[in-house]
Amino acid sequence: MSAGIKLVAKPGEVEFPKGMEGMISRESTKSFVNGAEGFLCYNGIPIQQLAENSTFEEVCYLLMYDALPKETELAAFNQRLLQYREIPDFTYETIYGMPAYTTHPMAALRTAVSTLSLFDESSEEDTPSALERAGINLIAKLPTIVAAVARSRQGLEPVHPRADMPLATNFLYMYTGEEPSPLYAKVMDIILLLHADHGCNASTFTAIAATSSLSDMYSSVVAGICSLKGPLHGGANERVMRMLNEIGTVDNAEPYILNAIARKKKIMGFGHRVYKAYDPRAAILHGYAKDVTRQAGTEKWLQMAEIIERVMIDKLGKKGIYPNVDFFSGTVMASMGIDPSLFTPIFAMGRVPGWVSHILEQRADNRIYRPRFIYTGPMDVDYVPMDER
Amino acid sequence: MSAGIKLVAKPGEVEFPKGMEGMISRESTKSFVNGAEGFLCYNGIPIQQLAENSTFEEVCYLLMYDALPKETELAAFNQRLLQYREIPDFTYETIYGMPAYTTHPMAALRTAVSTLSLFDESSEEDTPSALERAGINLIAKLPTIVAAVARSRQGLEPVHPRADMPLATNFLYMYTGEEPSPLYAKVMDIILLLHADHGCNASTFTAIAATSSLSDMYSSVVAGICSLKGPLHGGANERVMRMLNEIGTVDNAEPYILNAIARKKKIMGFGHRVYKAYDPRAAILHGYAKDVTRQAGTEKWLQMAEIIERVMIDKLGKKGIYPNVDFFSGTVMASMGIDPSLFTPIFAMGRVPGWVSHILEQRADNRIYRPRFIYTGPMDVDYVPMDER
Repeated sequence: MSAGIKLVAKPGEVEFPKGMEGMISRESTKSFVNGAEGFLCYNGIPIQQLAENSTFEEVCYLLMYDALPKETELAAFNQRLLQYREIPDFTYETIYGMPAYTTHPMAALRTAVSTLSLFDESSEEDTPSALERAGINLIAKLPTIVAAVARSRQGLEPVHPRADMPLATNFLYMYTGEEPSPLYAKVMDIILLLHADHGCNASTFTAIAATSSLSDMYSSVVAGICSLKGPLHGGANERVMRMLNEIGTVDNAEPYILNAIARKKKIMGFGHRVYKAYDPRAAILHGYAKDVTRQAGTEKWLQMAEIIERVMIDKLGKKGIYPNVDFFSGTVMASMGIDPSLFTPIFAMGRVPGWVSHILEQRADNRIYRPRFIYTGPMDVDYVPMDER
Repeated sequence: MSAGIKLVAKPGEVEFPKGMEGMISRESTKSFVNGAEGFLCYNGIPIQQLAENSTFEEVCYLLMYDALPKETELAAFNQRLLQYREIPDFTYETIYGMPAYTTHPMAALRTAVSTLSLFDESSEEDTPSALERAGINLIAKLPTIVAAVARSRQGLEPVHPRADMPLATNFLYMYTGEEPSPLYAKVMDIILLLHADHGCNASTFTAIAATSSLSDMYSSVVAGICSLKGPLHGGANERVMRMLNEIGTVDNAEPYILNAIARKKKIMGFGHRVYKAYDPRAAILHGYAKDVTRQAGTEKWLQMAEIIERVMIDKLGKKGIYPNVDFFSGTVMASMGIDPSLFTPIFAMGRVPGWVSHILEQRADNRIYRPRFIYTGPMDVDYVPMDER
């Protein structure tokens, strides 16, 4: 392929899609997004069916092993996830040693997750079973880290994980120190499940690029976190919530959005590189948003969101700009009392099984990612001594 | 481009190059590798001329700003690099709190570099000048971190940076606690300079993939470290040294390699995705290896390396398999008394200006990297309840 492409050229001389749009990284059996039709499946099962019937833990298994587990398989998998929940003392100390008020929660997550490999004796073992075990370890430990980060930011002692609750329930328990309501526990599980995988998104792509040098599971997941941190990727739902706070009142929603559209300002939570139709995850969360905002007494936010959605689809729907998953996840999580600065770390908790599954898939048939630049700098330049510059 | 490609297919049905070989990520003015001719330049200046006349600090400037600095510009740039050398107490504590004997040095580097953003008040500021400053901060601080990691592994107290030496000299001083000989200082500078950039290599690609979500400089460099850690990328020179130790004697070099070729074993330090001719960096280091092994009394290693080189080129040169930079850098660094497990962190010290320059270049004309998978999993699968599986 490179044989036909001019690799030294003037800027703009060679045409190619920016952001590697449309280029193929590899084959995958994990998830498929049909953006034109607003369709998402994990291993062939539509996301709506999974949201209705499955759990985050079961979806982790589905993504990792390409099949729904039998009862004994799921029990064994859950047993491992439960065993691995507690994090090393060093990781707690690292989190609590960070400047509490100024540390970006994703920088805290990146650093804390990076410490995990130091206490895994088989972290450098490059076998499928060691990689798999490290992946399960990461799925199990991320909620404990995120909850500890959240509490350290509030000046609160950490709440250690319990082994008698599902992962999402236990996360809310560690975050708040109290057992959550069944509705909140269910909705947190759905949020994680909906974020678990999404084709060749930027953080997954970064994670598999990292692992393609045969780097270990921890490094590869840290690379995913490094990418997810960016506001074009993981930070969008936090920005939706900031926008709702800025709008302030239900009455202000329509004029605010009309004004923003007139000024061609980007409205957070709308539009997506792949989706040119309604993001199915947004529709699922919209349903739960009704129950959660009613229980929380935050109906105002949902009313504002629904007005924004109506105005946006009315004005921009024909351009393929529809609500994405970030639009309702922010409303729902804020209603549950979650600090918006924790939204992206929670996204990471949800996405880690996707990263892990793609890392394992990459490693099963690996070649190092080494695309090319088109070199547009000068050629045949001589070094000029300092006194002649 | 994706319009013409079948995104749901049977495995192997759609042909595409693995490892994104030949695909274009973007334009770059930083470095150009002509693998067929064994040519490498930074911003148009051949690497041989830079090795002969320039310094690592000047090359950092060249890569970041696409021009050789005038005297006052280089002085100002050096001043910033000197000021930023010391690392936060928290970073020292994190390094010294790690299990000294079992921590992989690249896991230590990944974690320690990740802590740096926590103590940079403008780490989350998304402006060109804040990104640039963070980049210079990382170039300045990596040697201090690598030296601290090296000393903590030996149970030694850290040696703090001094401001009266060039970066490479100061690194050797912090590593050993003593001022290095002029030859060793010069050779360390050359090693860093030769590793500073190399087109769209895997770690640079991982770093720019991470930053394309508008993630910060620290996260993007950490992602580069996560990729470099893999043995297909940064780990090769350490393996060259292990091979030389395994060979043991000069007499054993030829039979060992002939035997390895006959068994089709991969010989570390030979062959490269891009180079199908002699890697110019290997030729430069070969020259310095003579002086260093003489000063160190390790001529044996160079003799072994030269025998291996002769046999390999004789047998495999027509297949385009020649020594790469890793082949001689291992010999040289081990002769200088550097623990082979530190070779990859030192590679990172050298590559960080390349990462930083490409991150800045990516951000100046950014689009998020989001290629596609070809989905080869099942389609239209219904969720099956547990009791029917």
